[in-house]
Amino acid sequence: MDATYDGDLVRAGRQAREQFYDARGYGRPDDGGVVLAPVEAAHLLFRGDLDVVVDGREGHDGDRLDFRSFLASTAVSEVAFFVYKDLRDRGFYLTPTLDSRVGDETGDFVVYPRGKGPWDDTVAYRVRAVSERAEVTADELQALAAADGDGTGVLAVVDEESELTYLEIDSPTITGSTHHDLEPVTGDLLADRVLVWDPPTSLHERAFYGQRLDENGGPVQLSLVEAAYLASNGTLSVVDGEGDAGDAAQDGDGEQAVIERGRSVEGERFDRRLRVYSALRTAGVAPKTGFKFGADFRTYAHVDSVDDLGHSETLVRVLSPTYAFAPRDLALDVRLAHGVRKRIVFALTGATAGIEWLSVERLTP
Amino acid sequence: MDATYDGDLVRAGRQAREQFYDARGYGRPDDGGVVLAPVEAAHLLFRGDLDVVVDGREGHDGDRLDFRSFLASTAVSEVAFFVYKDLRDRGFYLTPTLDSRVGDETGDFVVYPRGKGPWDDTVAYRVRAVSERAEVTADELQALAAADGDGTGVLAVVDEESELTYLEIDSPTITGSTHHDLEPVTGDLLADRVLVWDPPTSLHERAFYGQRLDENGGPVQLSLVEAAYLASNGTLSVVDGEGDAGDAAQDGDGEQAVIERGRSVEGERFDRRLRVYSALRTAGVAPKTGFKFGADFRTYAHVDSVDDLGHSETLVRVLSPTYAFAPRDLALDVRLAHGVRKRIVFALTGATAGIEWLSVERLTP
Repeated sequence: MDATYDGDLVRAGRQAREQFYDARGYGRPDDGGVVLAPVEAAHLLFRGDLDVVVDGREGHDGDRLDFRSFLASTAVSEVAFFVYKDLRDRGFYLTPTLDSRVGDETGDFVVYPRGKGPWDDTVAYRVRAVSERAEVTADELQALAAADGDGTGVLAVVDEESELTYLEIDSPTITGSTHHDLEPVTGDLLADRVLVWDPPTSLHERAFYGQRLDENGGPVQLSLVEAAYLASNGTLSVVDGEGDAGDAAQDGDGEQAVIERGRSVEGERFDRRLRVYSALRTAGVAPKTGFKFGADFRTYAHVDSVDDLGHSETLVRVLSPTYAFAPRDLALDVRLAHGVRKRIVFALTGATAGIEWLSVERLTP
Repeated sequence: MDATYDGDLVRAGRQAREQFYDARGYGRPDDGGVVLAPVEAAHLLFRGDLDVVVDGREGHDGDRLDFRSFLASTAVSEVAFFVYKDLRDRGFYLTPTLDSRVGDETGDFVVYPRGKGPWDDTVAYRVRAVSERAEVTADELQALAAADGDGTGVLAVVDEESELTYLEIDSPTITGSTHHDLEPVTGDLLADRVLVWDPPTSLHERAFYGQRLDENGGPVQLSLVEAAYLASNGTLSVVDGEGDAGDAAQDGDGEQAVIERGRSVEGERFDRRLRVYSALRTAGVAPKTGFKFGADFRTYAHVDSVDDLGHSETLVRVLSPTYAFAPRDLALDVRLAHGVRKRIVFALTGATAGIEWLSVERLTP
C-alpha cells in the first residue's frame, strides 16, 4: 500500500481509505482515496499499519521513510505526534485542524467523544498542543475558553521529557452573596496600609475587610487595595501620614492619596488589582490576600460572619491582557490550586478596560 | 516615666531600664538608663507600658506621641513592628540589629531562644523582615543561610493584609546514591529531544534517563539536558536531523549539536540548567523534569530501578546568582513543595561559575 508525502499532506488510495478512514477515523476521504495529515501518517507508521511513506517532495528522489526517519524529518512535529498518540491511546478519534476541514480552527486537534468519529457531529475537546517551552498568549487561552459549547477548550502541554499535561480552559462566572452595609469609618494612611482605630465590628467581623491588629481586638488594618475600594464608595475617610487625627482629608482626596500610595509601592499593577478587587466585591465575593498561595487574591463567595467562614473557593491572579503564559507557570498555579482544593482564575485587565476571566484546571481526557 | 525620641533611638532613665531591659529584654543599658530602638518603643506604647514618647527632634516642639501617632510617624517601620510584635506574642525576646550592638548584622532582629534574653549568649533566629512587595536578592538569602550555626536564618514576610509568613533559609547538601554504569548508545536529535532507538534497559529502567516512547517499550526519549549530559560523558552519540542513521556525529560534535539545540529553544537558561543537572547527577541524585510542579527538576536520591522508585524528595529551580526573589513567588514555591511533601531548593548559577544551593521552608517560630 503506497502513501506519498507531498510536502504538505500524505495521500493514499482506496484500500487505505477503507482501512484507515472508514474503519478507524484517520484522515479524510478524497477522490476515492484518503488524505492524511503528517501526524496521522506518523501514527500509522508507529503502529506498523503503514510500513513506509514515500517522500514525494522534489529533490527527495522518492525516499522511503519509515517511522524513525519520518519523525526525524521536518514533515511532522514531535509535539503534535505525542499529543495525537496519547489521545489515541486513551481511546479517542481525533482530526488535526491543519487540513482546514474543520471550519472553526480553534486548537490543533478536534477530538470526538469516545465511540464517535469524524463522521459524527459531536466534538468533545478542541486541543491546542504546545511544547512546555512555547509561550501561550492570553488571546490563545481566551479562544480556547470561547470554544466551549462546541467542545471543551484544552491546552495540551508536552514537557521536555515528553510527558503530557492537559489543562481545561474556561470562562468562569464570578458570583457570590457577600453584601454588607457599612457605616462610615476613618483611618490613618501608613506606609503600606491603613489603620482604622475605632472600627465598628461590621467592618472586619462581618464584611471581612482588613484584620485586627491584635487577636484581642483593637484597630483594623486595611490593605491599600481594600482602603482604596472603601474610600471610592464613600465608606472610608483617610488621614495621611504624620498629620493630626482631626485633619481628615476631603472626600475624594483620601481615595486619591491611597491610590497614589498604592501606585508608589506597586506601580501600575495596583490599578489592575484595584479594578479586579472592586469587580469581585461588586459580584458579591469577598477577596482577601492570596499571598500564602502566591496569588493576588483568594475569594469567599458567601461571608456572613468571619467566625463562620467557609473555605475560600478561588485563587485569583491579576494579569495584563497582553500577558504571555509560560506553560510551566500555568502548571505551578494549577498544581498548587488543586492541592489546596481551590480553582485558579486569571483576571485579565488593563488599567482602564474591562475584565476577562479565565479558569484553568487539570483535566484527564 | 519620660522616653525621648532623638530621631534615631528612644532614650529613657533608670526606672525604664529596670522595668523594660532588666525585666523583659527591651533595649540595652546605657549610662544608667536604657536605649530603645523605635520598634521596641512602639511595642511598649502598644502594650501601654509607655504612655507617650516625647519627640525630641528639632522642629517637633517636644510633641507627645502616643502609639497611634508614633506608628503613623516615620520613626518606625510598620513592617518591623508587625514582626517584632508577632515574635513577642510568640514568647520570644528579640533585639533589633540596627543599634549595632550585635556584631554580625545579618537580619533585622536577633531572636533569643524562649526563656533567654539579650543577657544570654545564645541566638535562636536571625530574622530579616520585609514587605511582600520588597524584592529579596539571592545575596540576602545567602547571608541568611550563612548565619546558620549562630541562629537560623529566617525571612519574615509581612503581606499586604499584615499577615506573617516565616521562611527558614538554609544551604542544603545535595547527595545521593544513584550511580550506574552505562554502555554507549546512539540517538537521533529531533527538534526538542533525542530518541534512542535501541536502548539497553540500563538507560531508562535502571539509571532513569528519559522515558519510553510507549508503555510497552520501544525507543527511549531523552530530554535535551539529559542528552547533553550523556553526550558530555561519552555515553551518547548523536545523529542530527534528517541525516542517515549511520551518519553519527564525531565525538564532541554530537554534544555540541545538542547544546546548540538547547540554546536555540531555551536561550542561556539551557547552560544553567545543564550545569545544575550535571552537578545533581555527579552528587548521585537523579533529576527528572519538575514541570508538573512548575520547577526545573524533581530529584531522586536513591534509584536502583525505575520499577522500585521512591518519592522524589526535592524540587529544584535554577536561577541566576543575581536573581531578585519576589516574596510572593517564594511563598508559591514553598507552599507547593510543602503540599507535595518535597523541599524546594534554588540552584544559583551563572553560565560558567559554581553553584550555590539555597533551601527555603516554612517555619513556625
